[in-house]
Formats: sequence, C-alpha cells, structure tokens
Amino acid sequence: MATRRLPATLRFLSAARRSELQGLEDLVRTCELVTDISRLVHALQKERGYSNIYLSGTAPQHRQQLDQLSHEVGGLERRVREGFERIEPDNLGAAEKTRLFTRIAYALHGLDELPALRRRIRDHRIDMQDAIAVFIRLIGSLLAVVFEAADTAGEPDITRSLVALFNFMQGKELAGQERALGVAGFASGYFEPALLERLERLLEGQERCFDIFSRFCGPDALGRWQAFCISDANVQACRLREVARRTSAGAAVDPHLCELWFDLHTARIDLMQQVEQQLEQDLLDRCRESSERIRTELHNHRLLLDRLADMHAAAEQAKLFDVHVSDLDATPQDGMTARVARSTLELLQSQSQRVQGLSEELREARQALNERKRVEQAKQQLMKQQGLSESEAYAWLRQSAMNQGLSLAAVAERLLAITGEVERSSKPRPPRPRSKH
Amino acid sequence: MATRRLPATLRFLSAARRSELQGLEDLVRTCELVTDISRLVHALQKERGYSNIYLSGTAPQHRQQLDQLSHEVGGLERRVREGFERIEPDNLGAAEKTRLFTRIAYALHGLDELPALRRRIRDHRIDMQDAIAVFIRLIGSLLAVVFEAADTAGEPDITRSLVALFNFMQGKELAGQERALGVAGFASGYFEPALLERLERLLEGQERCFDIFSRFCGPDALGRWQAFCISDANVQACRLREVARRTSAGAAVDPHLCELWFDLHTARIDLMQQVEQQLEQDLLDRCRESSERIRTELHNHRLLLDRLADMHAAAEQAKLFDVHVSDLDATPQDGMTARVARSTLELLQSQSQRVQGLSEELREARQALNERKRVEQAKQQLMKQQGLSESEAYAWLRQSAMNQGLSLAAVAERLLAITGEVERSSKPRPPRPRSKH
Repeated sequence: MATRRLPATLRFLSAARRSELQGLEDLVRTCELVTDISRLVHALQKERGYSNIYLSGTAPQHRQQLDQLSHEVGGLERRVREGFERIEPDNLGAAEKTRLFTRIAYALHGLDELPALRRRIRDHRIDMQDAIAVFIRLIGSLLAVVFEAADTAGEPDITRSLVALFNFMQGKELAGQERALGVAGFASGYFEPALLERLERLLEGQERCFDIFSRFCGPDALGRWQAFCISDANVQACRLREVARRTSAGAAVDPHLCELWFDLHTARIDLMQQVEQQLEQDLLDRCRESSERIRTELHNHRLLLDRLADMHAAAEQAKLFDVHVSDLDATPQDGMTARVARSTLELLQSQSQRVQGLSEELREARQALNERKRVEQAKQQLMKQQGLSESEAYAWLRQSAMNQGLSLAAVAERLLAITGEVERSSKPRPPRPRSKH
Repeated sequence: MATRRLPATLRFLSAARRSELQGLEDLVRTCELVTDISRLVHALQKERGYSNIYLSGTAPQHRQQLDQLSHEVGGLERRVREGFERIEPDNLGAAEKTRLFTRIAYALHGLDELPALRRRIRDHRIDMQDAIAVFIRLIGSLLAVVFEAADTAGEPDITRSLVALFNFMQGKELAGQERALGVAGFASGYFEPALLERLERLLEGQERCFDIFSRFCGPDALGRWQAFCISDANVQACRLREVARRTSAGAAVDPHLCELWFDLHTARIDLMQQVEQQLEQDLLDRCRESSERIRTELHNHRLLLDRLADMHAAAEQAKLFDVHVSDLDATPQDGMTARVARSTLELLQSQSQRVQGLSEELREARQALNERKRVEQAKQQLMKQQGLSESEAYAWLRQSAMNQGLSLAAVAERLLAITGEVERSSKPRPPRPRSKH
C-alpha cells in the first residue's frame, strides 16, 4: 500500500488518522514533562515554606534543612530544563506553540533567578513577603506551562486527566500560599484584617480548584482525596485556622504557634502530594491506553483503507476498457464503482462523527479548565461596576448560584455574557443592513 | 547570533516568535485555498440552480448552458484539488489537522461523485429534490473546510476576515437553497405549508449569517452589502417571496413563474458575489499586512534579543573570574546581571501580554463563528424538551432575546448553560469531598 497511489479521498482520510497518532506521541512527551513539573513545584513549595520559617527568625536551626531542600530542587529543576529542551510540540498549532514557548521562557527566567534569591534568604537580605512573592511568581509560571499543556491537548481522556491534575496542583499551591500566609500571621502574633481577608480568598480558591479536580479525576484519586479530607493532618490544620481567625491586635498569641501551623500545614500538603502522585500515575496510564487504542484503530483503519484501495483499483481497471471523450459521455457508474463510493462514504461518516465527538468532549473539558478564570473575571467585573469588595463580589456570585441552582461558573458565564452584550451594544456599531427579505 | 548559543530563556522567546511567523505563512496558503473554494462554491451554486431549472422540465433550452457551467466548475475544481494537495498545515495542532483532513476527504468524496450526478441530471434519471440534496451536501462539505480554516487560524485579524467570509458564504448558500426551493415550489404551481416553513427557516438562517458577517467585515464589504440590500435585484427577489407566501393548493400560480423566480434570485445571488469578492480581497489584504507586520516585529525582536544576548555574554564573562564551589557561595548578583535579568523580564512581560491579548481576540472571533451552531443547538434543545416546532422554538428564542435586550446567541448560550447544568447535576456524581476547611 505504501507504494500504490491511493485516491485523494483515502489519502486525506489516512493522513487525518496519522496526524492523530503523531499528535498523541508528542502529547505523551508533554505529559512526562508535566509530571516532572509537578514534582519540581512540590519541592519548590517545600523550599518556600522552609525559607519562610527561616526568615521568620524563630527557627534558625532550619538553615541546614533549607540547603538540603535547595539541593533537591536543583535535581528536579535539571530534569524539567531537559524536558523543556526535548519538547517538540508538533501536535500544537502556531498560536498554541507561541503561547507555550512564551510560558516556558517565563518559567526559565524564574528558575534563573533562584540562586540570587537563595543567597538573599540565607543572608536575611530579603523580607519574608518579598521572598514569598518571588516563589509564588516562579511556581505560577510553572503552573502556567501545565495549564497550556491541558488547554492544548488533543485527546479528551488525557485532557480530562490534565484538567484534574492542573486544578489539583493549583489548589495545592493555594494551600502552600495559605501555609506561608499563616506563618507570617502567627510570627507577628496575630492576623491583621487584611491578612484574614486574604486567607478567606485562599480558602475559596482551594475549594473551587478541588471541586473541578474532583469532577475530572479518576476513582482512585477521588478515593485518596476523600481519605485526605477526613485525615488528621487535614482536620488539625483546619482547626488551627479557627485560632488564626480569632486573633487580633488586642488578642495576640504566642509567635511560636507559627511553627505548629507550619508543621500541621506541611503535613497537610505532604498528604495532598499523595493524591497528586495518583493523578500523575493516572495521567501516564491514560497516555499509555490512548497510544495503544489509537495504534489498534490505526491498524484496523489501514486494513479498511487497503480493502477500499483494492476496490478502487479494480473499478478503475474496469473503466479502462471504456473510452469516452468526456465524463459526461461515460457510461453510468457500474455496480463496482457505486459500491466503492458507498464504502468510502461510510468510512468518511464514521470518521467525521468520531472527530465531531472528540471536538465536543475537548470543548467541555477545556471549558472547565477556564472556569476559574471566568469566575475571577466575573468577580473583577462586579468589583469594577458595582464597587463591591472582592469578598462581597464572591459572596454575590455564590448567593446567585445558590438561588438559581446553578454552578458558580454558569453564573459567572452569564454575568460576563450580559456585560459583553452591554459593552458590545454601547460601541459605535456599523448600521444594520436593511430589507434582507 | 545564529551560531552563538543563546541562554535558554531567550531561545524560547525567540522560538515563540518564529513559530508565529511560520504559522502565518501556512495560514496565507490556507487563505488562498479558501478564496478558491469560495469561487468553486459559487460556480457549483450556479450549476445547482441550472440543473434544477433543467430538471423542472420547463426549460430544456438550458442544457447547453448547463454543460458550459459544468465545464467552468471543472476548472475551479482542479484549482481546489491542487490546493488541497499543497496544503501543509504545520500551523495546526494535531486535533485540528485531523479535523481539517477529514473535512477535505469528505469534500473530495463529494467532488468524485459529480460526474455521475451530472449524467443522471442530463438523462433525467434523478428527482429534482435528490439532485438538490447532493449539491447541498457537496457545497456543505466545502463550506466545512472553510469553517475549519476560520476556526483554527491563529491570527485575530485574519480570523475575523475568515469569520466574515465564512458567514457570508453560508448566508449566500442559504440564498442558493432558497432559489432551489422556490423553483420547486413555483414549478408545482404553489407552496405546500411544509415548503413555506422551510422557506422561513432559510430566511432566518440568512439573517443570522449576514448579521455575523456584518459584525466582522471591513468597511468596503459593508458598503457593498448596504448597496446590495437596497438594490433592485434584492428588492425584486424579496417581492416574489411575498407571492410565494400567498400561494396554496387552492390558489396556484402559473408554473412558469419559476423561471422569473430563478432569474430574480440568480441576479440577487450574483450581486452577493460582489460582496464575497470584496471579502476575499479583504482576506488576502489582511494576510499580506499581517505577514509584513510580523516580519517587522520579528526583525525588531531579533535586534532586542541580540542586545540582550550581548549583555548576557558580558555578564557571564564577568562571572568567569569568580570561582565558587556552589551557587550559594557565589557573590551576589552584580549590577550587570541584574540589569540583564530586568531587561529579559521586560521583554517577557511584553510578549506575555501580547500573547494573552491575541488569545482573547481569537476567543471572541471563534465564539462568533460558533454562534449559529449554538443557536441551532438551543433550538433543538427547546424542540426536544418543550415539544415545540422548529419555528416556535426560534420564535421563543427571538422573543426572549428581545425581552432581555440580548443577542440571540447570548440567549442560546444561557439556555444551553442551564440545560448543561441540569444534565450534569442529574448524572450520578461522585460524592463531594468533605471538610476542606
């Protein structure tokens, strides 16, 4: 079949299938990179936590541990850097490739800045909040690479796995930020109202991320998550939150509570990592399954094409014995040609339906990926237009969702649709064409 | 710069820009193919129209004209087939490539069937409705290729041009179907209620397509469209519609009116083609402008990168004179390194913002592309769930849009969001994780 020239229809059908397989092979490499990023992020979160407690000044004994953590990050960082070099995203479109490369450049820039940051932390030449901010930016830039991977994957099962993993990573990162914020709060003896407000936002964020994660993860990860939710590590960390909420300038607590907070939240986050590892495993399993399935399908598809090509060749052979001036003078299609046409059409229809189904499934999963972003946008919109605070805006969205029995995302989507309409209609529009019918 | 090894951050930044340019070059080829498809579709619509009037039996004199039209289609078909062969959609992701190739295979299959169809038409061995159906399928498959091109283009200006052109082509195709339907109606002396209902749907469809077109086209095309709307060709064709609406089994008209209908609607569609030609021109202009702009940007970007690379090299050179066991022992960043880092960050930020802006613009244009599909889906939903007829469902959507001061698409989007919510919540869902905070 390789040497025989197929009719154009069959060649394109076959090219369609081949590009599917090739895209999947690139995607598998990207998913391996994603799991490496997930490990690096976990190590960075740990380094951020210990840098934080070290900078709080209450625990100088953490210096050695900090060096050890920096060393661990170094090893994982090398893997990720190698992964970036190896990536050949032929499965991506130009716009997606541009986005991915820009995100990678951003992440690399953050990694390049790590050595200088570490020196400043060791020498106490940086404020705790500033150090946290640098780590948050760096981790955010790595998460953005994972987001792009999820947003551009062309296989629904893998996309769902990536959506679950990305949201879990994002939720865990907010948990890490909560840990850092709590250390800062307890280290100063109490939580300022602004700090408490930020704490609440981090909790809302975690809730939304874990909600999306739980809609897209597999049963094993969900089981681990449920076990996490009722675990001592989680329950105790939550309890200390209540203590934090009750502090104020007039009701300060022992600054050394920051170490207990740190330990409890570290245990919480470490337990989260077990869910994350399950998600990484699920992702790689989905990759393997999809590769195998598509390989089998491709093989069957080739057999089908081969048979059709034989039929085409026979039909062409039969035509050779007729000589006509033009197509219009030719004899009507004989049974053979008609049969070939029908078989080709069936193959086309089944492929079209499959492709359409894939597109719909992808759309759904990608929509979920953007849910958080849309809720964020809706909140900004409300703050800007109604003059609400961030908490009020969120409360409003939440209440509307409950009243209407909809998800937060659906309410956000509607709000943005209305605002979009209003903005669109207030722009000077070209005059509407008249009398079309 | 080509031989010098750039730091990884800059290499990825530069790769991001290069992929943008390369994607655009592929896109330009795709747009040329789109304009060829648009011409082929126009010729096929004409051939359909004349086949139709020929099959109506009222005008056997059209046989020669029909042969001439088939010949014209043949020339344009060859160009499109060559375009399909030349297309190398490296600018597309795997899923998009799979979709595009499948659509092309479908279109090719339709083109392969043309000779047999033509013989059956000449010999009156096919029913008028069946012949129309085959042409509609073929033209639909060609439009689907244009849809994919619009849905996957990575440049907002070009995407907007493609969205305008696709919607115009789709509207004109519905105008062509209206012409065919009218010929069938008048040839039998009157319009059955079912036929009139289909006529109304074709009008609604045209209105929606031309509405989206007019939101995305340039001023020249809009000017031509406005001239079209008030042209005699359009106004007279619209008037004959009123006659069609007043016919019934008890109030039949002269079947020869079908020729007047055919001529008026042919004049209407031919005039539409002038708008279409303007859109094709606009599309090619946008391609040329974008190529030039990106080339200039790429050149400036290279100069910037070059300067940064020099700075990096100088900073590295300075470091060579320091010998340290590890990064942590190294001297703090000197002013040079810090300056390089800052400049790199600025470049990264501007590129990130640009890429983000591009993604948003693309999202908007692609959303409009799918508007009609969403309205269609919402209509189906209403018919299924509320037991409405197609017209009632459309009327309901339209009324809701007017009541709420929203577009049809926004109302459809909301309706689908609610239904999606309901469906999602009625599925057996995994138990919600407890006690997250």
